Amino acid sequence: MLTTDAKGDRSKRPNQQLNQDVYVHIVERNEKGIVITGTKAIVTGAPYVHEFLVMPSRNMREDDADFAVCCAVPVDAPGVTIVARPAGRPGEKPEHGAPLFSRKYGQSTGVVIFDKVFVPWDRVFLAGEWEFSGDVTYNYATHHRHSCIGARAGFGDLLIGAGVLMCEANGLDPNKKANLRDPMVELIKITEGFYACGVAASVYAVQDLYSKTFMPEPVYSNIGKLLLSTQIYDMHRLAHEVSGGLIVALPGADEDHNPATAATLAEVLRANPDVPYDKRIEVSRFIEDLSASYQGSWYSLISLHGGGSPTALKQEIWRNYPVGSKVELVERLMERGVLAEDNRAITKNKQPGRCCDAGCSQPGQQFMVPLQEIKKKSV
Amino acid sequence: MLTTDAKGDRSKRPNQQLNQDVYVHIVERNEKGIVITGTKAIVTGAPYVHEFLVMPSRNMREDDADFAVCCAVPVDAPGVTIVARPAGRPGEKPEHGAPLFSRKYGQSTGVVIFDKVFVPWDRVFLAGEWEFSGDVTYNYATHHRHSCIGARAGFGDLLIGAGVLMCEANGLDPNKKANLRDPMVELIKITEGFYACGVAASVYAVQDLYSKTFMPEPVYSNIGKLLLSTQIYDMHRLAHEVSGGLIVALPGADEDHNPATAATLAEVLRANPDVPYDKRIEVSRFIEDLSASYQGSWYSLISLHGGGSPTALKQEIWRNYPVGSKVELVERLMERGVLAEDNRAITKNKQPGRCCDAGCSQPGQQFMVPLQEIKKKSV
Amino acid sequence: MLTTDAKGDRSKRPNQQLNQDVYVHIVERNEKGIVITGTKAIVTGAPYVHEFLVMPSRNMREDDADFAVCCAVPVDAPGVTIVARPAGRPGEKPEHGAPLFSRKYGQSTGVVIFDKVFVPWDRVFLAGEWEFSGDVTYNYATHHRHSCIGARAGFGDLLIGAGVLMCEANGLDPNKKANLRDPMVELIKITEGFYACGVAASVYAVQDLYSKTFMPEPVYSNIGKLLLSTQIYDMHRLAHEVSGGLIVALPGADEDHNPATAATLAEVLRANPDVPYDKRIEVSRFIEDLSASYQGSWYSLISLHGGGSPTALKQEIWRNYPVGSKVELVERLMERGVLAEDNRAITKNKQPGRCCDAGCSQPGQQFMVPLQEIKKKSV
Amino acid sequence: MLTTDAKGDRSKRPNQQLNQDVYVHIVERNEKGIVITGTKAIVTGAPYVHEFLVMPSRNMREDDADFAVCCAVPVDAPGVTIVARPAGRPGEKPEHGAPLFSRKYGQSTGVVIFDKVFVPWDRVFLAGEWEFSGDVTYNYATHHRHSCIGARAGFGDLLIGAGVLMCEANGLDPNKKANLRDPMVELIKITEGFYACGVAASVYAVQDLYSKTFMPEPVYSNIGKLLLSTQIYDMHRLAHEVSGGLIVALPGADEDHNPATAATLAEVLRANPDVPYDKRIEVSRFIEDLSASYQGSWYSLISLHGGGSPTALKQEIWRNYPVGSKVELVERLMERGVLAEDNRAITKNKQPGRCCDAGCSQPGQQFMVPLQEIKKKSV
Repeated sequence: MLTTDAKGDRSKRPNQQLNQDVYVHIVERNEKGIVITGTKAIVTGAPYVHEFLVMPSRNMREDDADFAVCCAVPVDAPGVTIVARPAGRPGEKPEHGAPLFSRKYGQSTGVVIFDKVFVPWDRVFLAGEWEFSGDVTYNYATHHRHSCIGARAGFGDLLIGAGVLMCEANGLDPNKKANLRDPMVELIKITEGFYACGVAASVYAVQDLYSKTFMPEPVYSNIGKLLLSTQIYDMHRLAHEVSGGLIVALPGADEDHNPATAATLAEVLRANPDVPYDKRIEVSRFIEDLSASYQGSWYSLISLHGGGSPTALKQEIWRNYPVGSKVELVERLMERGVLAEDNRAITKNKQPGRCCDAGCSQPGQQFMVPLQEIKKKSV
Repeated sequence: MLTTDAKGDRSKRPNQQLNQDVYVHIVERNEKGIVITGTKAIVTGAPYVHEFLVMPSRNMREDDADFAVCCAVPVDAPGVTIVARPAGRPGEKPEHGAPLFSRKYGQSTGVVIFDKVFVPWDRVFLAGEWEFSGDVTYNYATHHRHSCIGARAGFGDLLIGAGVLMCEANGLDPNKKANLRDPMVELIKITEGFYACGVAASVYAVQDLYSKTFMPEPVYSNIGKLLLSTQIYDMHRLAHEVSGGLIVALPGADEDHNPATAATLAEVLRANPDVPYDKRIEVSRFIEDLSASYQGSWYSLISLHGGGSPTALKQEIWRNYPVGSKVELVERLMERGVLAEDNRAITKNKQPGRCCDAGCSQPGQQFMVPLQEIKKKSV
Repeated sequence: MLTTDAKGDRSKRPNQQLNQDVYVHIVERNEKGIVITGTKAIVTGAPYVHEFLVMPSRNMREDDADFAVCCAVPVDAPGVTIVARPAGRPGEKPEHGAPLFSRKYGQSTGVVIFDKVFVPWDRVFLAGEWEFSGDVTYNYATHHRHSCIGARAGFGDLLIGAGVLMCEANGLDPNKKANLRDPMVELIKITEGFYACGVAASVYAVQDLYSKTFMPEPVYSNIGKLLLSTQIYDMHRLAHEVSGGLIVALPGADEDHNPATAATLAEVLRANPDVPYDKRIEVSRFIEDLSASYQGSWYSLISLHGGGSPTALKQEIWRNYPVGSKVELVERLMERGVLAEDNRAITKNKQPGRCCDAGCSQPGQQFMVPLQEIKKKSV
Repeated sequence: MLTTDAKGDRSKRPNQQLNQDVYVHIVERNEKGIVITGTKAIVTGAPYVHEFLVMPSRNMREDDADFAVCCAVPVDAPGVTIVARPAGRPGEKPEHGAPLFSRKYGQSTGVVIFDKVFVPWDRVFLAGEWEFSGDVTYNYATHHRHSCIGARAGFGDLLIGAGVLMCEANGLDPNKKANLRDPMVELIKITEGFYACGVAASVYAVQDLYSKTFMPEPVYSNIGKLLLSTQIYDMHRLAHEVSGGLIVALPGADEDHNPATAATLAEVLRANPDVPYDKRIEVSRFIEDLSASYQGSWYSLISLHGGGSPTALKQEIWRNYPVGSKVELVERLMERGVLAEDNRAITKNKQPGRCCDAGCSQPGQQFMVPLQEIKKKSV
C-alpha cells in the first residue's frame, strides 16, 4: 500500500500546490476508468511487490476532490516509474562476508511516480468521494500501526537472540553478570511491552458489520506503535551494550582469507574457549548488520516515521481516548451533580457501554471511543 | 494475603537468624493444628480484612522447614497484634476540606506480629513441605503482580480525569494547547501501556489441570508490574505538569470559611469564567490528595515495592523468558547446524510449541517457558 | 521575590481581565509613591520573609502599563494579606516522632493579596515602563532558575546520604549489591548532572556593564532547571528503590512508647545487627519526610513549576540558543556558498565571537545569543 | 593511545591466559630496551596516527608484571600489523553523491597486533611496575572520558544544525511548530547537558604537583561520558524525528544524473519553495551519513563503549563520589552524635575540605574523593 504523497509545500492543501503532481490525483475520467498522475514518496517494498494500493494520505476537502483517489495499480502499468535503492545487499555473498541477514531479507523504500497511469473502474475504490478520504486514511493507518507492532517485535526477537549469542561468544553469562542481564531484561521489557499493546488491540478489535473484517482497537494500536517508534533506538543501544565494542573494531570480511592476518586474528580474537573465532565474528557481523549499518538504521527510521510520525500517533491517541469517561469517574468521586455538558471540551470523548453498573468491558465490545460516523456526502 | 517477613539479617537464611521471630514459623504441631510465631512486615490492608492468608516469602531449604508455612488466620485470632497507621483520613469531613478521595478510600500497610497463634489443620495449606515454598511464593507473586496492573490502571484513570478537569478549571483546553495535550497523551500511554501487559497476561494465561484456576502468563505480568512500578513517579509528574503550580499554593480548608479571605480568594483564584472557585479548588485538592500527600506517596512506594521490588521482577522476567527460542531463531538465520546444547547457559529456556512450522502461539497455549516441575519431596 | 500573578482568565491580557485584581497593578500615583492592588499566587516563603520584591510576571504591552510594576513591600505593610499553610510541622516535637527535617526546615508557598498598598517612590523600581517588563521578568527568571539548581542539588545530597544510611540499616552494602549501587549511581548522576549545568551557567556568566552584577548564562540555567524539574520525580523513585518498602509500613510515632508493641518492634524490625531499631526507624522516617509526605511532594511540585514550568524553560532555551551558528557550521561542511540570509528563520540566533578562526569561547565571554536590546520606549 | 587488549578468556587474568598474546606483554628485556608481543583490540585511528601510546588496560597483580607495560611505538615499527577497515569513504567523490561529511572526516577503529616489537628505553614509561598499572589506566581513562565529552558535543552541534536545515528544507519552521521545536530543544538539552559536565570537570580539575598538568575532576568526567554514551541513541532519534521519513526514501546518488528521473524528482521532491531540490537532498544525505549509515552507527557504538562501557563508568562514579560526606550531612540533620566509623562501608569516601564551616569548594580545590595513594612497590 502506498499513502504518503510527496506533499510539496506543506502550508498548502493539495489543490493549492503550484505543482499539483506532488500529490497523486485524477487527471481524467472516462467510461473505462480513471487516469492518475502524481508522486508517492515513501513506499516500502516498492520495487518488489506485484501491485500498488494507492490511497489518499490525508483528509480532503471538497475542492480537493480530485485527490481523493484509492485504487490498485500493477507495478508494471504504463506510466509508473519507481525510484529506489537496492534492498539489502543482493550482490554480496556469504563467502565474501556478506551479512547473513541483509543479503536475504533487506528492504527498500522508494519514490513512485505516476505519469498518466490508466486504472480500470474495477480497480478503483474511491474517485472523488472526498468525505471518505480521512476515514480511509485512518482505517488504513490503524491496521498499518497494528501490524507494525508484530513486525518490530520480531526484530526485537533477533536482537535478543543475537545479544545473548554475543555474550556467550564473549565468554560471559548474563545469568551471572547483572550488568549484562539488566540490559537483556530491558530489551525484553521493551519488545514484549509494545507487543502486549498489539495483543490488547487484537482483543478489543471490533468487527465491521458489512465487510466482517476486524478493525484493531485504535488506542492500543497507536500506543504500541508509539512505544516501538521511539524505543527502537533504545533497543539498538541495549543490543550494543551487551555486545561490547568489538562490533566497531571488527576486521572486514577481506581479512577472513588474508594469509597475513587470518590465523592470528582467529587466535587472539577468541574469548570463550568453546566458541571458535569464526562463530564469534559471525554473530558480531549479524548484530552490526541489524543495528550498525545502513540497513539497521533503515529499520529505526522506518519504525519512527513509517505508518505515521510520533506526532500523528499522539493525535490519534487523543482523538480516540475516552477522556470524558475518566472525567465522569472523577466527578462521581467528587460527588458533583451531573453538570450541563454542552460545550465541555473535555467530556466529548466517552466510552460506550462503560461506567455502567457492571463497568467491565469484554473482548469484542467496543472499548474506546467509536469512530465518528461519516457525514453524508454533500451533493 | 501476607507474605513479606520482617527478614532480620538479610545475609542469613530463616533458620540462621538470631531472633527467629523475624520470620513466621511453626513452633508447635499437635493433632488439632499448628501454632505459629513471627512477624510479617508489609501487609497492605492489615487492619480492615477478615482473615490473613499467611504465606512463605521465599523459597526454603530443608533446614528451613519450620518456616515453610501457609495458612489462614482470622484477624482477631488470639496472639495476633496489628501495628498500623490509620487508613486514609477517617476523622476528617468534607465540610472541613477533607480530601474527597482519601477520606473514603485510603489504604494502610501494617506490621502483623504473631505470638503463638493457633491454626486448626483445616486452615493449614503448607506446614513444613519446604520444596513447595518457592512455588507457592512465585505463583502468588504472579497473581499479585497481575492484579496490581489493574489496580494501578484505575489510579491512572483518576489522574487522567483529574488532570483534564484541572486544565478546564485553569481555563485551558488540551485540545488546543500542545504543551498540555502532550503530557496528557503521555499519561494515557503509560497507563494503557502497562494495562495492555495485563491483557496479554490474561490472554496467555494457562489453566491449572487440577484446580481449574487460571495462572496469568508470568512474563507479561512481571513486565506490566515493572512498567507501573517505575512509571508511577512519571504519572505524578505528568499530572502535576498539566495541573500547574496552584496545588502547592492552595489555601488550606480552614480558609474556606474564613470571613477575612474567603470572598476575595473566590474572586481572584478563579481562572475559567465557567468554573467557580470552589470547583477549581476541589479538583486541585483531589490531585493533591492523589499525588502530593502522604497517601499519594504511599501509592508510589507500594507500587514500587509491593508484590516484589524491581530487582525481583527482573529476575522473574529473565527466569521465565524463552531466550533459548530466540537463540534458535538467530542460529537458523545464520545457517548454523544444530549445535550440541548441553551446558549452554543461553539455550536452557525455550518456549514449548514454538519455532515449529506454524510458529504462532494461541490464546490458552503455553506461551513462555513452563514453570519448572516441582522436585519430589525428599524423605 | 514574587512574580506569579493569579492570572485569572488566561486567554486575556492583564488589562482585559474582568476582575483586574487577578494581577497586581497600580491604582494610584502621587508625589509620595504608588498604591498597588492585586494578587500574587505562588509565593514561596511568603509568611516568613521581611520584605516582598513585587515583580511583573510577563511581558506587557502599552495598554498593560499599569501592570508593569516592580517594587519592594514590607510583609506587614497595611493592606497586605498572606494566605498560607504552615511551613513544615511546627507543632510537632521530635520526642513525639516529628520528622527531624521538616520540623525545622519546612517551607510554605502562599497567596499574597494586596489591597491598596502604598509604596514610597524609593522602593519603586518600575512603574508603568511596560517595555522593560519582559526583560525584568526574564532576568529574574534566569537568576531564579540558576539558584534553584543549587537548592535542589542540596536536596539530592540529602537523598543520597539518607539512601545509603537506609541500605546500611537494612544490612545491605551498595558496594557489594549491584541492584542497590546502580540506583545510587543513577541518583548521583542526576544530582551532579544538573548541578554541572549550574556550574557552566556560572562559568559563562556575563557581567553587567552598569550594575557590575553577573548574569548567569541563560541556556545552561534553563537546561539545569529543566533537568531537575522533571528528574526530581526520578530522584524520589531511586531513593525509594534503595530504601525498600519499610517506609510505608513504618509504625507511627505513637508506637514508639506503646508498651504493648515497642519492645517487640525493636526486636523484629531490626535488620543490620550493628544498627539499632530506633536508628533504622529514624532514617526511614527521614526519607518518608523528604519524599513520601505532603512536604516531600511540595518539593517535587515546586521544583516542577517554581521559577517557570517546563514549557517556559523550553521556550527560553530555544530563544537563547545559537542555532544559527550550528547552521553555519553545517553549511560550511557542505561547502555551500554564503546564502542570502534575510528572512531565514533558522539563522537568526547566532553566537557572538564564535565560528571565528580561533573558535573557542572563554569564561566571561558571551557564550550564547546575547539578550535582545531593549527597544526605546514609545512616547 | 591504545589500551584495550584483546582480553581472551575474560574469566582469567592476563598471566593465566592459554594464549598470552591476547594481552600485550614484555617478552624480552635487554640493555637497549624491551620487546613486546600481543594484541590491542579497539584502537580508534590506528591506521592514521604517527605513534601508538601502548598502555595497560586494567590493574595488574604481581604475577601479571610482564603485562604492566606502557610505551610509545611508531606505527611503522617492525613487527606491527594493523587490521582495520577504511576510514570514511575515501574512494567516493561528491559529484557521485559521496556524503559530504564522511568522505572527509570518517574514522576507523582497528586491531593492532604486536609481534616482537622492539621499544628503546627512552620510549618506555612502565615496564613491570604492576602497582602503577591501575593508576595509569584510570588517569588515562579520566582524560579520555573528559575529551570524549567535547568530541560528542561537536557531533551534537552537527545534528542540531542539520536538523533545523532539514526542517527548513521541508518548509517547516520549528519556531512555529511545537512538534519540531520540542525535539530540537531536547537535542540541545542533551548536548549541552553533557557538555556542562565537561565544563564542571574542567573547573574542578586538580593540578598535579610534579607534571603541572591538570587532571579533570573524575566524577563529572564520568557522568558526562555516561550521559553521552547512552543518550547518543536519543540524539539520533531526535534528529530523525525532526527530519521526517524522506531520509530512508531518498533516491541514491545515481539518480542525480539519470535523465529519466532527475528532472521529475527535482520537481516533485521539493517542499519549501525557497530551497531547491538539490539542497534538500544534500541535507538529507548529510543526516543519513551522520546517523543512518555504517559511519553513523560507528559514532554510537564508539560513544557507548569507547573509553569505558557504562558499567565501567558507573564503577568509577561510585568509587570517586564522596558518599561519606552526604552521610555526615544527614547524620548531622538527624542530630546523631558522632558514630564510631571504623568499618562503616558507607562513610569511607569523604570529600576533603568540605562540610567545614565555610562549606563551599572553589575551582582548583579538590572536589571529590582524592585518588588513593599508590601503595609502595613490593620488593
